[in-house]
Amino acid sequence: MAQWLRFQHQGKTGLGQVLGDHIAVYQGDLFNNPQSTSEMLALADVTMDIPCVPSKMVAMVDNFHALVTKLEHAVPAEPLYFLKGNNSFLAANQVIRTPKSYSGKVVYEGELGIVIGKHCHEIDEVTAAKAIFGYTCINDVTAIEILNRDPGYAQWTRSKSFNTFGVFGPYITTDVDPSKLTIKTILNDQERQNYPISDMIFSPAQLVSFISQDMPLMPGDIIACGTSVGVGSMKPGSTVSIIIEGVGRLDNRFE
Amino acid sequence: MAQWLRFQHQGKTGLGQVLGDHIAVYQGDLFNNPQSTSEMLALADVTMDIPCVPSKMVAMVDNFHALVTKLEHAVPAEPLYFLKGNNSFLAANQVIRTPKSYSGKVVYEGELGIVIGKHCHEIDEVTAAKAIFGYTCINDVTAIEILNRDPGYAQWTRSKSFNTFGVFGPYITTDVDPSKLTIKTILNDQERQNYPISDMIFSPAQLVSFISQDMPLMPGDIIACGTSVGVGSMKPGSTVSIIIEGVGRLDNRFE
Repeated sequence: MAQWLRFQHQGKTGLGQVLGDHIAVYQGDLFNNPQSTSEMLALADVTMDIPCVPSKMVAMVDNFHALVTKLEHAVPAEPLYFLKGNNSFLAANQVIRTPKSYSGKVVYEGELGIVIGKHCHEIDEVTAAKAIFGYTCINDVTAIEILNRDPGYAQWTRSKSFNTFGVFGPYITTDVDPSKLTIKTILNDQERQNYPISDMIFSPAQLVSFISQDMPLMPGDIIACGTSVGVGSMKPGSTVSIIIEGVGRLDNRFE
Repeated sequence: MAQWLRFQHQGKTGLGQVLGDHIAVYQGDLFNNPQSTSEMLALADVTMDIPCVPSKMVAMVDNFHALVTKLEHAVPAEPLYFLKGNNSFLAANQVIRTPKSYSGKVVYEGELGIVIGKHCHEIDEVTAAKAIFGYTCINDVTAIEILNRDPGYAQWTRSKSFNTFGVFGPYITTDVDPSKLTIKTILNDQERQNYPISDMIFSPAQLVSFISQDMPLMPGDIIACGTSVGVGSMKPGSTVSIIIEGVGRLDNRFE
């Protein structure tokens, strides 16, 4: 298992592996044989950045049985998704901000994120499993009052693509099997979500294979696996954490 | 008025202005003071590329009165949109291809494309009008049988983001007022669409201003203004052309 992160230090972007409270610094491309250096930095001395720069974030809808049941939706016959705007990406410890043009409720959605390691197009599930580089934590922040305010058109991309709404990190964790893990969302020290990844309708390998039939996936692309029950709104000044034991803990303030 | 294009010539990507059947070659960034060179090339000697490389294509839904009326939809209170995947971009004269995983109908949708010239975020309509660099022709190709096959979730991004489905070009035309123009779609020498841009519900400046409240727009980003009546399917072997007099003529074969 490795935990990879990107960071800002002395005005430069760096790449490294987390070792306790330090970072072993690497050079080169995370997805193409990065080279270790002898440099070590204290985690406390860097600003964490998003752990990779996705060319796209593909975000799932209705991918957990418990949520589908609660919403009285049918279990989808195939994965349902939208694209979350790249402008929305935000790193751990940065501030999620209410858009200037919006005064409604803003909700958290704790999710598992799949990080793609290899270019893949039209691949089967076995190949897809090997194309997964690792996993990260996602907070799929949503201006929820926009989503269904048009009577005929659900505004998924718009409600979820404001700047700072695509939160992921702090690391990419490799060599972990998420199927036995749980996702917790903590809002101001209160647990709001706690659901098992095993309740997922389409597994990570199924999602990667399926989406790759539609559009090529690139190293660093992220699939947000969808959330489950317990979504709720955040008051300005809140602290929100998405915790996947063994994968990471993603902390942000909301203003 | 200028008509800007990108092209491939002797293994390199080039930038230039169309002058009759020739190209006056430029260097540098189209959106940041490109420099003319003394080089001229014959249009017949180059392969046209997409005229810019958008960081995103924002595509509108229900933005023409005639189509909204035909579909018996309400006139939207605000612009409705989705993101079209960047993998889908295709230049003039290239081949639109049926996805391997899909055997249903594939439809053309002739549209006006707005090309953004300046970074803009949270701008008003007057500023938005100045942020428009020019216009291009778009064929918003769609795997139409995917769009509504899930009973609860309309799959806009998926049905419209297969490779080769985001066709635009051949040029970006500057200093043109599209409000008096018409959009024609010709399928195998038969006119299938012919609608006035003046029937648009939200004007280009309104769209740019509105979308900029949600997500920053970057130089080269494209807003596909939505189509109107006359959408139909293409048989393999068809030739499809989107013609906006004074803006350009976008020809492609479909296989």
